[in-house]
Amino acid sequence: MKKYISEFIGTFAMIFCGTGAMTINEVTGGDVTHVGIAITWGFIVMAMIYAFGDISGAHFNPAVSIAFAYAKKFSWKEVPKYIVAQVLGALFASLILWFLFPTSEFYGATIPATDAMRAFVLELLLTFFLMLTIINVSTGSKEVGVIAGIAIGGVVLLEAMFAGPITKASMNPARSIAPALVSGHLEHLWLYLLAPVLGAILAVTTCKLVKDDNCCDSSC
Amino acid sequence: MKKYISEFIGTFAMIFCGTGAMTINEVTGGDVTHVGIAITWGFIVMAMIYAFGDISGAHFNPAVSIAFAYAKKFSWKEVPKYIVAQVLGALFASLILWFLFPTSEFYGATIPATDAMRAFVLELLLTFFLMLTIINVSTGSKEVGVIAGIAIGGVVLLEAMFAGPITKASMNPARSIAPALVSGHLEHLWLYLLAPVLGAILAVTTCKLVKDDNCCDSSC
Amino acid sequence: MKKYISEFIGTFAMIFCGTGAMTINEVTGGDVTHVGIAITWGFIVMAMIYAFGDISGAHFNPAVSIAFAYAKKFSWKEVPKYIVAQVLGALFASLILWFLFPTSEFYGATIPATDAMRAFVLELLLTFFLMLTIINVSTGSKEVGVIAGIAIGGVVLLEAMFAGPITKASMNPARSIAPALVSGHLEHLWLYLLAPVLGAILAVTTCKLVKDDNCCDSSC
Amino acid sequence: MKKYISEFIGTFAMIFCGTGAMTINEVTGGDVTHVGIAITWGFIVMAMIYAFGDISGAHFNPAVSIAFAYAKKFSWKEVPKYIVAQVLGALFASLILWFLFPTSEFYGATIPATDAMRAFVLELLLTFFLMLTIINVSTGSKEVGVIAGIAIGGVVLLEAMFAGPITKASMNPARSIAPALVSGHLEHLWLYLLAPVLGAILAVTTCKLVKDDNCCDSSC
Repeated sequence: MKKYISEFIGTFAMIFCGTGAMTINEVTGGDVTHVGIAITWGFIVMAMIYAFGDISGAHFNPAVSIAFAYAKKFSWKEVPKYIVAQVLGALFASLILWFLFPTSEFYGATIPATDAMRAFVLELLLTFFLMLTIINVSTGSKEVGVIAGIAIGGVVLLEAMFAGPITKASMNPARSIAPALVSGHLEHLWLYLLAPVLGAILAVTTCKLVKDDNCCDSSC
Repeated sequence: MKKYISEFIGTFAMIFCGTGAMTINEVTGGDVTHVGIAITWGFIVMAMIYAFGDISGAHFNPAVSIAFAYAKKFSWKEVPKYIVAQVLGALFASLILWFLFPTSEFYGATIPATDAMRAFVLELLLTFFLMLTIINVSTGSKEVGVIAGIAIGGVVLLEAMFAGPITKASMNPARSIAPALVSGHLEHLWLYLLAPVLGAILAVTTCKLVKDDNCCDSSC
Repeated sequence: MKKYISEFIGTFAMIFCGTGAMTINEVTGGDVTHVGIAITWGFIVMAMIYAFGDISGAHFNPAVSIAFAYAKKFSWKEVPKYIVAQVLGALFASLILWFLFPTSEFYGATIPATDAMRAFVLELLLTFFLMLTIINVSTGSKEVGVIAGIAIGGVVLLEAMFAGPITKASMNPARSIAPALVSGHLEHLWLYLLAPVLGAILAVTTCKLVKDDNCCDSSC
Repeated sequence: MKKYISEFIGTFAMIFCGTGAMTINEVTGGDVTHVGIAITWGFIVMAMIYAFGDISGAHFNPAVSIAFAYAKKFSWKEVPKYIVAQVLGALFASLILWFLFPTSEFYGATIPATDAMRAFVLELLLTFFLMLTIINVSTGSKEVGVIAGIAIGGVVLLEAMFAGPITKASMNPARSIAPALVSGHLEHLWLYLLAPVLGAILAVTTCKLVKDDNCCDSSC
């Protein structure tokens, strides 16, 4: 049970701060700034990894849970339970933001600024880079493991920074579902559910090209 | 005595740089920028944790001292002494800023841009996320402990970044008292005294849900 | 083969995110901001070092590979293979950006805002500082080695920040070749091929002035 | 001799990048931005500490060398040699910037935006916070020592961020002398020579209040 509570609280904190930054930027007319939003995303991911990494593995993302299961580093049986905890945590965050900022229209919903095909490819690549870092760092040396939160938070930060203006850089189905439901902006939601999962699985596949036998498939 | 001097100097440095950034931004008409203010807060917290963590535990915040006592990781008898040292350090910082920048009106005072109830909930949640990180990182593995200053400073940075435009992201009664007294802006001070303490205690409560028996209640 | 795949993927990720930030900033009329571009460069370099450092050494840069060979810390026979992998990775990134953002003119091509001689000197110095950090950190104590990705990513970040407005802060022939070919902006490309190599070799030379016998020439 | 070369190269890199950021911001009409200048300062200090910390201690600052000698952690006989190396490194940086950007007026010279007395107090406090972090981190546990570059670079970053608009946040006589000589802006130079030294010594004094016997006076 500790694992699911960790995933719930960690995802809640991540979505509250990240989409909160976007919501506050919206209702204040830009006070947080785009750079500030990206920094918020990266640092809350980093902090929650250090807070809950030892307990649940700090996925906070259905695409990451599925990819770890695909890599045989996480039980498929756990995947649905993790996803439920993650989506509930994200929804709880969006509901509190809806209470705090009733005048917002989007609550950080992910709506692409390009056509669906290009947005799909970009989200797939963004999640590929994220999962590439996660899987390689988590199967690296112990010393690198200490830095994992900084490396992974850094990837979220930089991807929100450069790709945010095009797709909002979701990389995470739970992160996209919650504000979509609360704001009613469900358009294009399908691509934010599908592309991250494919991108994350692709990263696991490439991991097997560069690591020793079974390293990406078992604990290294 | 070394502990109280550490809390005094560390809180002094933190409040001088953090509210100094807000004061200089005010008197220069925005030269520091909102992003710059948030970065200043986060990095001075990080630096002071590494400077004084070994000596006093680097609380610099009455809400943190109370929450650690509630978690039985810090003596209740020490709490009032720590709070006195923290408030004096913060006051000393505000007084020097008052000498250096006599034309400022606020000296970084925390005045919410929303109604009191919403500001209260937001400050409670901000301190909840901060204490959640502090308590989990400080009861985690030794390796994670080395990163503690980066993780905790990062939370302060990101919360000042995204919530600063709404409540100034105080999370700290001592941080709110000092500029309120020096600037005379005492309105809404009560919520900045109460909400952080409740948020920090709530974080200790959730820690017990995700950690092994007594881990949040004793040294792990 | 694992090494070349690592260099290909790592360089692909670095160039996609870094020049992607410049491309998205161009097509959105400045949404990423200059600060955001520099942060993107630094953090993707950091993440890829932690992802692939154990496998290929995480060069991602022909100038770095040549300088390590010059320092006798890397085989000259490997240099052309690494360079091919790096250039192919960079080209793959530029081609996907060309598909995603067909209206861009530059795709992050490096065109100096000053005369060729000054741009040459500046690029040489930028790569000198980068390689100085790389060679000293990689021949330092084991503890410092863990921080290597942060230190090296930090140098890329700061150099893109301060010198970006003048030369785009390439420091990397592969990084300049790919967008030059895809955008057709081949002018001044020669200086971005030559200056980084000279700067990196100069850094190796100075390393020998400050380290013990043979330390820069063999594994320390 | 290795130590002096390290101090020369490290100070050269620091002043070239830091005042280079200010110079490029000046000649481009603000392209680097104030936030970008502060980030440049912090990250080059961090990188040079990791590059040269094992060799020379990575002072790069006459005030730091004098304060370490005052703390009996560094030989007084070495102080003048270190200062010569630091000032020469800084001058070399300013001269190259003068060659690269002949239209600049200031080359990053430190000219206060307030009266001399307030600028003096602020520079003294800035250097106090910097040396406070340096001396406490360098006399702390081994694990904290690994983080030293991040903590110290972070202090430089945040102080340049919040105090830059008032005094340019020099904290370093060598950093102020070089651009003053090259630009001819020698006014107020005296305060940038005196205040940092007093602030750094004050930090050593307070270190003795919070650390065990002789810890700040000998290797801990």
